[in-house]
Amino acid sequence: MPPLGLLHMRAWASLFSRLLRPPGVVCIREVHFHSQVSEAVLTSQLKPQHEKSNFIIKTPKGTRDLSPQQMVVREKILDMVIGCFKRHGAKRLDTPAFELKEMLTEKYGEDSGLIYDLKDQGGELLSLRYDLTVPFARYLAMNKVKKMKRYHVGKVWRRESPTIVQGRYREFCQCDFDIAGQFDPMIPDAECLKIMCEILSGLQLGDFLIKVNDRRILDGMLAVCGVPESKFHAICSSIDKLDKISWNDVRHEMVAKKGLAPEVADRIGDYIQCHGGVSLVEEMFQDSRLSQNKQAIEGLGDLKLLFEYLTLFGIAEKISFDLSLARGLDYYTGVIYEAVLLQTPAQAEESLNVGSVAAGGRYDGLVGMFDPKGHKVPCVGLSIGVERIFAIVEQRMKTSGQKIRTTETQVFVATPQKNFLHERLKLISELWDAGIKAELLYKNNPKLLTQLHYCEHTGIPLAVIIGEQELKEGVIKLRSVASREEVAIKRENLVAEIQKRLSES
Amino acid sequence: MPPLGLLHMRAWASLFSRLLRPPGVVCIREVHFHSQVSEAVLTSQLKPQHEKSNFIIKTPKGTRDLSPQQMVVREKILDMVIGCFKRHGAKRLDTPAFELKEMLTEKYGEDSGLIYDLKDQGGELLSLRYDLTVPFARYLAMNKVKKMKRYHVGKVWRRESPTIVQGRYREFCQCDFDIAGQFDPMIPDAECLKIMCEILSGLQLGDFLIKVNDRRILDGMLAVCGVPESKFHAICSSIDKLDKISWNDVRHEMVAKKGLAPEVADRIGDYIQCHGGVSLVEEMFQDSRLSQNKQAIEGLGDLKLLFEYLTLFGIAEKISFDLSLARGLDYYTGVIYEAVLLQTPAQAEESLNVGSVAAGGRYDGLVGMFDPKGHKVPCVGLSIGVERIFAIVEQRMKTSGQKIRTTETQVFVATPQKNFLHERLKLISELWDAGIKAELLYKNNPKLLTQLHYCEHTGIPLAVIIGEQELKEGVIKLRSVASREEVAIKRENLVAEIQKRLSES
Repeated sequence: MPPLGLLHMRAWASLFSRLLRPPGVVCIREVHFHSQVSEAVLTSQLKPQHEKSNFIIKTPKGTRDLSPQQMVVREKILDMVIGCFKRHGAKRLDTPAFELKEMLTEKYGEDSGLIYDLKDQGGELLSLRYDLTVPFARYLAMNKVKKMKRYHVGKVWRRESPTIVQGRYREFCQCDFDIAGQFDPMIPDAECLKIMCEILSGLQLGDFLIKVNDRRILDGMLAVCGVPESKFHAICSSIDKLDKISWNDVRHEMVAKKGLAPEVADRIGDYIQCHGGVSLVEEMFQDSRLSQNKQAIEGLGDLKLLFEYLTLFGIAEKISFDLSLARGLDYYTGVIYEAVLLQTPAQAEESLNVGSVAAGGRYDGLVGMFDPKGHKVPCVGLSIGVERIFAIVEQRMKTSGQKIRTTETQVFVATPQKNFLHERLKLISELWDAGIKAELLYKNNPKLLTQLHYCEHTGIPLAVIIGEQELKEGVIKLRSVASREEVAIKRENLVAEIQKRLSES
Repeated sequence: MPPLGLLHMRAWASLFSRLLRPPGVVCIREVHFHSQVSEAVLTSQLKPQHEKSNFIIKTPKGTRDLSPQQMVVREKILDMVIGCFKRHGAKRLDTPAFELKEMLTEKYGEDSGLIYDLKDQGGELLSLRYDLTVPFARYLAMNKVKKMKRYHVGKVWRRESPTIVQGRYREFCQCDFDIAGQFDPMIPDAECLKIMCEILSGLQLGDFLIKVNDRRILDGMLAVCGVPESKFHAICSSIDKLDKISWNDVRHEMVAKKGLAPEVADRIGDYIQCHGGVSLVEEMFQDSRLSQNKQAIEGLGDLKLLFEYLTLFGIAEKISFDLSLARGLDYYTGVIYEAVLLQTPAQAEESLNVGSVAAGGRYDGLVGMFDPKGHKVPCVGLSIGVERIFAIVEQRMKTSGQKIRTTETQVFVATPQKNFLHERLKLISELWDAGIKAELLYKNNPKLLTQLHYCEHTGIPLAVIIGEQELKEGVIKLRSVASREEVAIKRENLVAEIQKRLSES
């Protein structure tokens, strides 16, 4: 796929071979996927700009407008992501911004408190969607769809508390790709990982790693370490914190707060330090404790098959089997994964937070929760954390001082003379009708210098100039804004000449 | 601009020269812009699909999912609309789905009751946006932007009551283009009308007409007819109903309900029957009563200038000065317009509701409502009623039995043999990496017939087939799905050959 011309970034020379876990970075599919902008940015965003008798003009807390500059970056990235989804044969789906409140209950566990409810104005109780996965499962069940490969790009809303999680947006964009249907093991799962690799490579975000684990291995590990089943969930959520706090702190939480025996915690500690390639999968097959657990063996068998396919896709070296990966809400049932950007030491010192930028996994039970007879449709999918990617690309462009054009205007219609508005309007109309992107100044008598400055300022490559002399001779002056060269073109050849110049550039 | 290949529709042979007003069609920028689907469609949408112990699986009332087929139509139309906005030099902006509740108050008059409020979960009081115009004005005031040409494509939400207005969606998409800034009169206004013409022509929706009026002419007309200023608003809203009910009924409402003297109503009746081109503007300048009203004269002067520019743009014959056009919320201050599709008699008999599909006008005071010092930024803009256009195009395609591809897959990877998954995975990976859109079946051993049927069913033009023999010889069979012709290609030339074939087709 072509590199993003506008977004080209310097390559990173040296890369850590082992994933860094920057503090405060938690950004996965199941929890939240927005960018962690610096607090300063968010605060300035939220500050009242004006006051008019107690009237503060601002966007709601945790939300923001996207300026034309930001929209350009965003659209380039989304085009690239959507291009990849289409390359893999996905169809596009859209669902309403809100769902019946009951559709979202019992899907998000503790995070349910972050759901935005609509006011009861008479009628149904509604909530803004929290992710794109639950609406997809609802769609499949409602329409009895048994097989579908779809993508969905849209906003989701979460009432994150900025006092708890700094700098997180409450409105953000998700890009999801999912494969629903009963298929042979690990083929769709491997494709999801391939898609993540294609997107992260294509966006040139630097080196990355995809951590992989399986819910069954995780559960099996906890079981053989001696964790009672009733505590699986609590212990998983402690393990999940390894992104933010050290093992010692996690261990302390497990023992002091969650009542685990110290030796049980230490056994877990031994496992979750393990990460590696397919050889680690083989090693775990031989593990004296894990090999006794049926669930774990199933998970390991699937991971082995997965690595076979990843090798065929040429991406096995990007994937790390990582026993500390404990992502996920209740709905994950099999393989889970999370992509993280790797930092150079230089970047680690910058304020730029990198970390998880894509995640997903297998959820074979979610559709069944909506089906009246509980019919299951196995699903596997991924979500790209585009807000984080936007923030990274934006910051890089700011640092590099790159200028972004926010319009695509190709030709500016100018005149050096007074009372030439009519001729300018006729001319620009011809250009528009020929499909050429064109602008003029909305003034009866603008100065020529003002008009040419406008071209230079906004990056318009060509100007056409019409005056008394040109009108008499039936020509138009065509000016290259950058070189300032001008040639006279017969009016009837103008559109063809412009199209020729534009196709050459 | 290129016609929408997929969306090509039959041309309409005979066209009414005078706008038909189909009953029940009210679809303007300020009021609502969603499609009026047939009640049957909406009802089936809203019907519960499943029940699971009182659990009804459905989308919220007045909302719907968009299927992949619908998304394809939608994206073609949106691409065309956005292409036109870009051709006119607009930048893209995005704003949050919700605003502080107070931002929306006193902007929509009686329609304020249709605003969706969010539940008070602690913190700010929020409402879903009702249109894209008020958020744009808020953005300009908040960022002290004095000049901007922007477009915005996004969803808006309105709690229309289906018992009052049948078949109207509560979530729908708007496409807005606006020019903010202090410029010479009527140049941006004329461009807005040019854009509406380009879009409606480009979408090949059949013949159309744009009705134009001016708030100042409307107010002047009411004044000279003898309407007290306090009743301007009420009388305007009666005139607005001419789309739905006859003049006799409107007159009755004015006299019986709104207390107008019968002779005043009759004077209004004389004016609002007038519609025509620039000659009507001249005529009104000579009108004994209207020519006495300063406001009306200002409005007529601007309309005269507008027609001058529209003639230069070659669209004057599409525009009708229509004194019955009384659209608009309080915020319109100058020229107002509304585009309507013209029906052939045959179409009028079909259930397809056509009517207003685009509208807009000048609102010079709205930004000032947000500015602490009341600084004004004059604005003019338009909104394309894309939901109505989607509905029209969808129904036409259904009628024509046209098949829509919902994926863009170019190549299918197949095998006639068992145990060839590994080779298929290696091959498809090569294709993906070369940017080719490719699919395979997620089965270890699919039947060849199943694979080829999949290509035919989903419209994939090419299949590559790999088997024992091909592997031995270092070739791949390349099959044209339509012609069923197969040729053997050296594996190393495969990508180049596929790209050649795709570029030729």
